[in-house]
Order: sequence, then C-alpha cells, then structure tokens
Amino acid sequence: MILDYAGRRFRLAATLEGVDALLVTNPVNVRYLTGLDSSNAAVLVRADGSATLATDSRYIEMTKGLDLEVVEDPDVTGRLAAAGAGIEAGHMTVATFNRLGEGLVPTEQVVERLRMVKDEEEIELLRRACAISDQAFADISGNIRPGVTEREVARVLEARMVELGADKPAFDSIVASGENGAIPHHSPGTRELRAGDLVTLDFGALYQGYHADMTRTVALGPPAGWQREIYDLVAAAQLAGRQALAPGASVRDVDTAARSVVADAGYGEHFRHGLGHGVGLEIHEEPFLGPSRTGRLKDRVPITVEPGVYLPGRGGVRIEDTLVTREGGPELLTMTTKELLVL
Amino acid sequence: MILDYAGRRFRLAATLEGVDALLVTNPVNVRYLTGLDSSNAAVLVRADGSATLATDSRYIEMTKGLDLEVVEDPDVTGRLAAAGAGIEAGHMTVATFNRLGEGLVPTEQVVERLRMVKDEEEIELLRRACAISDQAFADISGNIRPGVTEREVARVLEARMVELGADKPAFDSIVASGENGAIPHHSPGTRELRAGDLVTLDFGALYQGYHADMTRTVALGPPAGWQREIYDLVAAAQLAGRQALAPGASVRDVDTAARSVVADAGYGEHFRHGLGHGVGLEIHEEPFLGPSRTGRLKDRVPITVEPGVYLPGRGGVRIEDTLVTREGGPELLTMTTKELLVL
Repeated sequence: MILDYAGRRFRLAATLEGVDALLVTNPVNVRYLTGLDSSNAAVLVRADGSATLATDSRYIEMTKGLDLEVVEDPDVTGRLAAAGAGIEAGHMTVATFNRLGEGLVPTEQVVERLRMVKDEEEIELLRRACAISDQAFADISGNIRPGVTEREVARVLEARMVELGADKPAFDSIVASGENGAIPHHSPGTRELRAGDLVTLDFGALYQGYHADMTRTVALGPPAGWQREIYDLVAAAQLAGRQALAPGASVRDVDTAARSVVADAGYGEHFRHGLGHGVGLEIHEEPFLGPSRTGRLKDRVPITVEPGVYLPGRGGVRIEDTLVTREGGPELLTMTTKELLVL
Repeated sequence: MILDYAGRRFRLAATLEGVDALLVTNPVNVRYLTGLDSSNAAVLVRADGSATLATDSRYIEMTKGLDLEVVEDPDVTGRLAAAGAGIEAGHMTVATFNRLGEGLVPTEQVVERLRMVKDEEEIELLRRACAISDQAFADISGNIRPGVTEREVARVLEARMVELGADKPAFDSIVASGENGAIPHHSPGTRELRAGDLVTLDFGALYQGYHADMTRTVALGPPAGWQREIYDLVAAAQLAGRQALAPGASVRDVDTAARSVVADAGYGEHFRHGLGHGVGLEIHEEPFLGPSRTGRLKDRVPITVEPGVYLPGRGGVRIEDTLVTREGGPELLTMTTKELLVL
C-alpha cells in the first residue's frame, strides 16, 4: 500500500493559521505525516510544506527511505522547537511546554481534523482489519460455550486474529458474560460461561496501524424473555444509528437517532455512554457521537455505532459495527450478522 | 494479593510541599494510589491523606469495594481541580491545563518517586511476571529454528505467556534475526530465520499490572567467530552492570560499569542506548541507567540491565535481566541462563 505522506504534509501546511510551522509530537500524528512509527519522534511541518523529522538512534534505521529530512537527536522536541511554531496542546505536557521556552503557540486538533477524513488507501486497510475481525469471530465461535472462562475466549479470539494477519489486537478485548455484561468495559476474567448467559465480545484487529472495532452479544442457549427484549431493542437502536450516518449529519443527531429508540422503550438510564467514535490510526478518535458533542460528519469518515443496554446484576447487550460515511449511504466494514446468535 | 492503597496515599500526602493537595491524572499513578485501572479517572489526594476518586459511568462498577470516596463525572479533572492543588506536569497536557484555569501548581515526578521503591507485594508480582517469561521462553525455544518467521516466533512466545497466566505481553515483543539484530527496536517481520543467524528476543509478561522485561540472544547453529566475540563481550558487560547495582550507587556509575567493558573492547560506538530502566506498573519508569542520568539507587528498586552491541548490516547481541536492588546484593528475577544457547 503506497501512502502519500508528502501530500498529507502539504495539506497540513495549507491549513496552518497564525503560526510559521507546526511541531507535531503526538506519535500517531507523526506516523500519519511521515510513516515512522516511533515512541520518540517529532516532525516540524513548515508553511511551505517542507518538513524535518527528528528521532533517536533506535529508530534511525527505520527512517531510511522516508521522503523528508531526518535528524538524529534524543531530545526530538527540543531539537525542532522554534519561536513562532505551533505545538499540539492536546498532546504536549505542561512540563515539556515549560521547558521549551517562549514563543510557542498552543494549537488543538490540527492534524486530527485532517486525519478524520480518510483516503481510500486508509479505508482499504480498515476494511482488511475488519475482515480479519469478522473471520476470527466466525472461526472461534465454537469456543464460546459453557465452562470456558472469559479470559480463555479472549485469548483464542486474539490469537486467531493474529494468525489471520493482524499486527495484534486493536485494544484489550472485552469478553463479558452473565452479570459482567452489565459492565461496559469489563476486563475478561476467570468467570466461566454458563448456559443462560448473554456474552458480549468487543474486539478488533489492528492491521498496518489501523483499528477495527466491533461488538457482538451472543446467547448461550435459548434466550430468556428479558434477554430477547433488550437484544431486539439494542439491535433496533443500532440500526437507527447506522441509518442516520450521512455526510452533513450532526454528530448529536446521529446519537439521538439511536438513543431515542432506547429511551422510548424505557431503558434510557441503562445506556449511558456515547453512541460511537471515529477509528483509524487510533481506536478512539474524532469524531465522537454523543448527546453533548458538536460538529457534523463528512464524507469518508470511518466510525463506530455501538449502543448498549446494561442491567446491573443481570447482564447487558451491546452491538457495534465499524462503518464509513459515504454520500450514497454508509459502507459497512464489519459484516458479521446482527441476528442474535444462540450458541 | 492485598495492596495497601491507603498507606500509599498517606505516604504521598506526607511528601507534598507547597500545595494543598495533588491532582493525580496519570492513569498508572491513579491505579497505584487507588487500585482502579481506568483510562478516564483522577484522584485528588489532600495533605491530610484523605482522597477523592473521579471516574465516568463505565468504570463505576469497578470502584465498588475501593477504600475511598468516589464521584461519577466524565470530566474527571475538571471535577477535582481546585486552586492550590498540584498537577502532574509530566502527564497533563497544555490544553487541559489551560482549560482548568488559574491556581494550579505544576509538579513533577511526585508519585513516580514514591513508586520507584517497591513494597514486597509488588516485588512478588514482578517475580511472578518474570517466572512466566522464563517459562514461556523455555517452552517455545524449540520454535526458534530456520524457516520460521520472526513474527511467528513472537506470536508463539506471546501466546505461551498468556497460557501461563500473563494478563498479556508487557510490551510488543522484539524478535530480530540476522541483520535485523542490528536494530535495537526491530519489529518482528516476515524474515525467516536462517542457520547462522543470531536471534535477539526481547519480551516479558504483564502480570496483575506489573511488567517483566528480559532479552536473550541465541545462535542458530554454531556461532561464527565475530558472533561469539560480541556475545561474550555483551555478557561480560551485563555481568559488570549487574554487579554494580546497589542501594546508594549512582545511576551513571552503574551505566559506566557496563559501558566501559564494551568501550574498552573497541565497540563503544555500537552501544548507544542506556543500560537499563526501572520496571513496575510501567515498562519504562524511574530510575534510568545512562551516561547523562543523575541520582542514586535505593533499596527495593526493580530495574533492568541490558547492554547490547549492534553491527549494522551484520547483526547484534543484547542480554537483559530484570533485577531488584537489595542491601545484600541484587535479586535476580529473570532466571534463564545467559550462556549462549545454540539451537
């Protein structure tokens, strides 16, 4: 996959306002603009589109072949900081800012705004990440059965994603069974799955830096009435959220489209997190879908839609897809069925 | 394992100077002081040792049973910030600091200094993390053979650690074979191992939040003369570094003890990173061993010793242990032999 790093830097340069250059220190943004994946690197992008990358000796070999000037210095930010440059205030710490001295200008979300709209090469990487996630889920669904612990399910699922070509899991997988399903961010533990459980799996593959994110809730044995009721409710809300995804839609309205379905059924208090978030080089990135969020979607924005209902002490349901906004209607990247699977 | 979170908060309170309280926002420090492992939490520890923890709805279930006041608010820092409190300048971003308003006092490394000296319960968790790492290496050494890719070796090693009880790998494993061994932070790729390679494996288990870190370099078939030479050199340097570990020793002197062995043999330019780093709730934490570092070791400080020699285009050797400083001499936590393994 050929990624146009120089083109991204020129587009960034064209957006700069009130600064001579931008000192980019967020590692994800450095990777986006240069191709270098390093825990200690920075890039200064000037208003004319020229750029200098700094990193330390550990990463110098990896910079061979990159299409910009590279300097080796362990103090990457100190080396590139210059009065009149913008800094990434959402990433740089107070300690670093105070050490660098005068004349630097806090900016926010400059590269993140560029990153929000993906090019087709990025979408293809996300498509592959999602395909690996779908396939892994299909392959290990036989392992989701009574007597197996949550942690064992997470382990086989993650191992299968890597076997299928993932760099690694995109985030720590959630496997939440029975009453643990009421905890949206439950860490898989030693609880053994039991007949009668709902089991929520929230997982995804990382593929060449791009993060898939999907959630399915399955039933171990025929679902009880309350389980079927909240499953169908969450599925209906998720469909409403997906249908509301469109370039130009307000992120709050998309959230409302799904949330009102849950609220109208009397379960509003049991769905307390946002509806979704952008995905790409980060697992959570702009834009965010939520009741207090502002802004509008654009074309070619990968995003999740993931409503849930959580009943403390009993269990929960969450259903999540990764999609991409398109003028003709959203493109679905996670293809696994959203019918209730009874295992 | 019972960890004394309240005791840690009282010890922290006793160290506060010039502030009424400390607003702790670094997630690792929040975990250390409260037991809550959350991506969105903060704790305000007051000079009298009392404390308030804030987190959002996703994590509230996990706070049941914690021994301090808890408030639910997605804006965890905004909820707890109060004029006169210290903030963690090494973690808080410029954007957050500017948003919180006047009267907050930048501080640095306050909790990190406390964390540097571990209690025996923490050392026991590190001991288990290292034991898992040793066992996994022994179990998969048969997989380190010609024809297998670096990535496959990393995968079986990481999977084995999880099977043996690791939460997950402590960091992205390094498997660097042949000429890739010259890149200290090489990401395991599709290169197939070949007879005549040196192969460097840098890996560790995460166990209940604590990070093991070890490196071994093995030979595939009888080593060439240059391979044996740099292996023996690095092993001698690593031994010298370990022997220099003692409460009271300066971190620069420990680095020098190992580095001078490499330099005296004429390979100084091929060992350009620091000698080691503290480990605990983070994979890299205070103290750091390096030529430009300052400070002295204390008792009960887990730390790595990891010299290397890297010959561009040819290959490299690194040998690393995790140890704990003790009055009677360092305690070795990673037990795998440092004799050159010929596989």
